[in-house]
Amino acid sequence: MPLSGDAGSMTITTPLQPTDRTSLRRSKERAATEREVLHEVLREGMFCHLGVILGDAPLVLPTAYGIDLDRGVDGTLYLHGSVAARSVVAAPEQTICVTVTHADGLVLARSAFHHSVNYRSAVIFGVPRLVTDPDEKLHGLNVIVDHLVPGRSHATRPPNRKELAKTSVLALSLTEASVKTRAGEANDDPEDLALPYWTGVIPLRTVAGEPVTNSDCDLLTPAHIRTRANLLGAPS
Amino acid sequence: MPLSGDAGSMTITTPLQPTDRTSLRRSKERAATEREVLHEVLREGMFCHLGVILGDAPLVLPTAYGIDLDRGVDGTLYLHGSVAARSVVAAPEQTICVTVTHADGLVLARSAFHHSVNYRSAVIFGVPRLVTDPDEKLHGLNVIVDHLVPGRSHATRPPNRKELAKTSVLALSLTEASVKTRAGEANDDPEDLALPYWTGVIPLRTVAGEPVTNSDCDLLTPAHIRTRANLLGAPS
Repeated sequence: MPLSGDAGSMTITTPLQPTDRTSLRRSKERAATEREVLHEVLREGMFCHLGVILGDAPLVLPTAYGIDLDRGVDGTLYLHGSVAARSVVAAPEQTICVTVTHADGLVLARSAFHHSVNYRSAVIFGVPRLVTDPDEKLHGLNVIVDHLVPGRSHATRPPNRKELAKTSVLALSLTEASVKTRAGEANDDPEDLALPYWTGVIPLRTVAGEPVTNSDCDLLTPAHIRTRANLLGAPS
Repeated sequence: MPLSGDAGSMTITTPLQPTDRTSLRRSKERAATEREVLHEVLREGMFCHLGVILGDAPLVLPTAYGIDLDRGVDGTLYLHGSVAARSVVAAPEQTICVTVTHADGLVLARSAFHHSVNYRSAVIFGVPRLVTDPDEKLHGLNVIVDHLVPGRSHATRPPNRKELAKTSVLALSLTEASVKTRAGEANDDPEDLALPYWTGVIPLRTVAGEPVTNSDCDLLTPAHIRTRANLLGAPS
């Protein structure tokens, strides 16, 4: 019953730079090898799940991210966090895993076994670099804010020295990455096609609602906010 | 700029059973300690991100899950995967981390630093049990299918012996778990309130579209599918 959320079928299959961790595995037909697909998955995603090792256990936390495809040979993903966060302190000394997932639909087959999920998923491994250059640090933070809401970094008060001192920025190369997707309808075994069970897909997507202005703000919703909400399918 | 997706502010803060990994950290005010909140986050979630250690690196993969709150002292979370999946093979021999995240809104403050995310996140640690009892294995698989679409396990062909042999089911106790949430509007520093920047929240949610019947299926969309789609806010 490989639901595609399934750890089995989600195992990394398509190295953009082959390594042991991203060596070719099962479900080749689902593999998308183009780096462009990786970039699309990262551009469309809003949050990632960051995996680090703390002590003898993995720790997986959701976090915001941003990407700068022109930084570094293969592009750079930026993460940030409190300088006091255990995950942020541990990250620059170890290989981390950053995973971005889009769940596009529930795939309901006639057999429980062939139930699946339409999805797009990117996995990036690497030892992140703690950004110490002041200009790149600010750049990384702007990239993260603008990733969530394009243009936002120009419509806020930039972080001051005190705020920057409280924040760590990590840079992760997109070199060791893989992407995997599943799309389309359910695929049952031929002998199951006559079974009297409905089969199909329930599409899923993340949408935005109408922007809600703060109670202490009397400004009209600006274009960059409305544009972002509309891009995410807000009712207009 | 602790976006709440931020690894810093998302660091586990609210142990339901205190351990070193889930010891109280920052952002106490965001912590939700009730186990009921954990259950709500797990009930509403459709997918989790599973963290395992492979070699010297963490591996984070999205996967489907299901929960049975009546199984075990604190309830049980079920995962499954191909018996060949490295993550599934490795999991029963180590502590794993399962994280379920709901992103509820983008919080846009006047200062970049106070940008945040409204979210609900659950983190569960434990050494999973490889389910070998045939009845519990089938139960676990049904729990996972019914978690995605309630009632679906009764509207499909159950897995046969061959399919069951290809699938591993893992049971993880909900004992060592934590949950953290952020809700409400943006909170700026008093000295920033007069800044001429719009501040507020862009709400986010996952919605379903109209169910799409397979091209090889001529059955009408059944109630359990329509109910699930409507529950997720499908246009009707």
